[in-house]
Amino acid sequence: MDLNADLGEGFGVWRLGDDEAMLDIVTSANVACGFHAGDPATMRRICLAAAERGVAVGAQVGYRDLAGFGRRRIEYDFAELRDDLMYQMAALDGFCRLAGTSLRYVKPHGALYNTAATDEAQAAAVVAAAADFAPALPVLCQPGSVLAQLAAGAGCRVVGEGFADRGYLPDGRLVPRSSPDALVTSSEEVADRVVAMARRQQVVAVDGTVVPTPVESICVHGDTPGAVALAQRARAALVGAGVHLAPFS
Amino acid sequence: MDLNADLGEGFGVWRLGDDEAMLDIVTSANVACGFHAGDPATMRRICLAAAERGVAVGAQVGYRDLAGFGRRRIEYDFAELRDDLMYQMAALDGFCRLAGTSLRYVKPHGALYNTAATDEAQAAAVVAAAADFAPALPVLCQPGSVLAQLAAGAGCRVVGEGFADRGYLPDGRLVPRSSPDALVTSSEEVADRVVAMARRQQVVAVDGTVVPTPVESICVHGDTPGAVALAQRARAALVGAGVHLAPFS
Amino acid sequence: MDLNADLGEGFGVWRLGDDEAMLDIVTSANVACGFHAGDPATMRRICLAAAERGVAVGAQVGYRDLAGFGRRRIEYDFAELRDDLMYQMAALDGFCRLAGTSLRYVKPHGALYNTAATDEAQAAAVVAAAADFAPALPVLCQPGSVLAQLAAGAGCRVVGEGFADRGYLPDGRLVPRSSPDALVTSSEEVADRVVAMARRQQVVAVDGTVVPTPVESICVHGDTPGAVALAQRARAALVGAGVHLAPFS
Amino acid sequence: MDLNADLGEGFGVWRLGDDEAMLDIVTSANVACGFHAGDPATMRRICLAAAERGVAVGAQVGYRDLAGFGRRRIEYDFAELRDDLMYQMAALDGFCRLAGTSLRYVKPHGALYNTAATDEAQAAAVVAAAADFAPALPVLCQPGSVLAQLAAGAGCRVVGEGFADRGYLPDGRLVPRSSPDALVTSSEEVADRVVAMARRQQVVAVDGTVVPTPVESICVHGDTPGAVALAQRARAALVGAGVHLAPFS
Repeated sequence: MDLNADLGEGFGVWRLGDDEAMLDIVTSANVACGFHAGDPATMRRICLAAAERGVAVGAQVGYRDLAGFGRRRIEYDFAELRDDLMYQMAALDGFCRLAGTSLRYVKPHGALYNTAATDEAQAAAVVAAAADFAPALPVLCQPGSVLAQLAAGAGCRVVGEGFADRGYLPDGRLVPRSSPDALVTSSEEVADRVVAMARRQQVVAVDGTVVPTPVESICVHGDTPGAVALAQRARAALVGAGVHLAPFS
Repeated sequence: MDLNADLGEGFGVWRLGDDEAMLDIVTSANVACGFHAGDPATMRRICLAAAERGVAVGAQVGYRDLAGFGRRRIEYDFAELRDDLMYQMAALDGFCRLAGTSLRYVKPHGALYNTAATDEAQAAAVVAAAADFAPALPVLCQPGSVLAQLAAGAGCRVVGEGFADRGYLPDGRLVPRSSPDALVTSSEEVADRVVAMARRQQVVAVDGTVVPTPVESICVHGDTPGAVALAQRARAALVGAGVHLAPFS
Repeated sequence: MDLNADLGEGFGVWRLGDDEAMLDIVTSANVACGFHAGDPATMRRICLAAAERGVAVGAQVGYRDLAGFGRRRIEYDFAELRDDLMYQMAALDGFCRLAGTSLRYVKPHGALYNTAATDEAQAAAVVAAAADFAPALPVLCQPGSVLAQLAAGAGCRVVGEGFADRGYLPDGRLVPRSSPDALVTSSEEVADRVVAMARRQQVVAVDGTVVPTPVESICVHGDTPGAVALAQRARAALVGAGVHLAPFS
Repeated sequence: MDLNADLGEGFGVWRLGDDEAMLDIVTSANVACGFHAGDPATMRRICLAAAERGVAVGAQVGYRDLAGFGRRRIEYDFAELRDDLMYQMAALDGFCRLAGTSLRYVKPHGALYNTAATDEAQAAAVVAAAADFAPALPVLCQPGSVLAQLAAGAGCRVVGEGFADRGYLPDGRLVPRSSPDALVTSSEEVADRVVAMARRQQVVAVDGTVVPTPVESICVHGDTPGAVALAQRARAALVGAGVHLAPFS
């Protein structure tokens, strides 16, 4: 099983989360590439630190929207979106190569993640950028999403991900953030969930339904002090249950 | 002899110069990378068009300053400047590889060009970015500049450039843009100059002094209709004088 | 009757259209405020030039999206959009006051114009910003749009506008830009249309239907040389038909 | 005596310092205006909160440089800098007026603060923007600086400020940030210094020299948890010493 987290999401003087702490927890780092967050100096630092630890680096690509942190849906033209994503992937890959490694996968961020899960045009732009960058580049996304379908159809490797600290609906989608059940905050519950995902490929939805989760990676968060502790607990639970942690790529 | 020009210097809806016309004139294209100008869709289009024509692509890297078009000196920290430049080079290289080629050289833009010609710290950042990107990556710059010296010292290939339409001082520097002699606008004079640079490695300065110009590339401009015609005239004069035109890289 | 046009839509070194020529044609200038286009030096210059000519200045407010020129719909949060628009209006008003006048109205730009014509939340944000800025501030928009309804309900003055060079559907909406009938390019036809709008408050739709156009202002464009000539023709036709041209504000 | 602090220096999702805590300490708030930091929603929130507490709002104007947080000197053209500053002041004033008050003063930020202290052209641009915005608008700056001299000459009210937690050189300038004596971190020492500035208009420099500080305002910082506590201590010391705290404006 792989553990992934969003890293490098500060910009200039502004920091978000504890990148160094998270690099000791995860096996894959989704590094922001400068459009919704991230700056070149941070990208370099994280790529070097990830390479030292054997953590795989993926491009966490987003809309060009620093002010909105990539969380506002934007009605991009297909080609413009594809090229904006390609640009971000290539830029990050430069720092990966400097660190003696290379870009291993792509994962869309924020509103692009949500939009590409259901919108064919934006999903197709993500897939086109991935295919332009490298044949069969892995795409990290939600199982069953439109993005997963299109990526598979285009010959990309599709890597399904589950969420350690997000509530699930009976149909496998996430509980919307506006709902009180959106976040799982109990560390025991998080520990139980990640082990169930890793060992039995399933999670219990908010209504008690058992939902299948065919995932190769589990997403943890690190943007608050509490989140880092929760991520550490998730890792410890997996290790304690005998789950082997390694990059999927 | 190589002919180079700055291309792709629009941004979004805004255009600057006639990129397509210039691609039929030059042998090397200095492509803007998104920090002072340039957007991913334009970078892709130009890289593809350049590759079709056998025009070499170099990274025209600049300060992060769209509002100032990279023409305002910024007191960057060394590492921040190096990483901003590395980011730009890697992003452009992604589109080069998509076009079946690769990034062939780097040339600083605007205020960075001028600053790196005399300022050790900024010149060193340009050189560090070039060396980080690829060993011996050619650096296109003014002969005798601090950048030329540091690049040579670091093992980069230094490619000197002359200017078809800029006045020269007796010491080999360019006439400042604020002076009436800054620009050469007569197409006959431009034709004579480029042939003298190519055949005799020299140019006549504003006071009549003959100045040596040990250059492998001549820079032409294309940001006005008149400039495109002047560039065409320069190319025709070189061809007429039997000078072989080809990328230096 | 008022004639309005979008002005100041360059950014830094990039220009779009001939602002000076258009200021001699229109009676109201929709000045870009820096988010989709426009920079402070341009805003100052246009406000001063407009004030000299008795041209009213309105805020052409847009999404924060220079790369997309405000033409991509963005799913803003209500309060964020309201505050982004308020910021733009206040900034432009500073240059108006410097020129001895004040901001006279607001008009949304591009994708915000289209979205606010049908989307209640974004229309409400435009109205909230207008009301925050000044009681009863005129809102320039399409007659019958959701924005027009909400603005009227909030006590803003609603100023309907027609388009000199855009095709109309039988229901009064504009022909989408993707259609071949989207633009009217014949100067004679433009002349006839603006006179019909001004004298009879009507326009002939693409299918021959006569559509009522209860407008106080007609929008002309100036972003191409041909557009400026068309705008001059529209103005001449109105003057020739005895229509008095003056700012609506 | 007035207490001022830099507020609203986040951007979008990123936060810097505890604005609400600082608004209970200071009598004047230097609010970031969107160019080096600050977004419209934050500007609105702080202007409303400041007005409720009787805290005066000033424009903390900076270079257009979010990535560098306004801390990198930029070689602006005079008119461009003046207009960029005017734009920021006017935008913030819009939110002040919404809160029932108005912009009371201007203070340059970061590299602009330092540059305008010694560079005539940039100081003149700050003064021109202030004078354009409102006659006699107070300029908050270091006593004896070039900015103070030019502002006085132009009829602006000059308000000198001292620094609660910065070391002083014998000539009245601040110890550079690169020096170990740059910051005063002892809360007792900070308390003694602010009382000495307020009661005796003097401060003890790093070499023991007593330096005159003709100041009407003392700057405190709030960008770290420790900084907020230090600012609270400074306020308590002044109140304890019988110093009346009120906005200078």
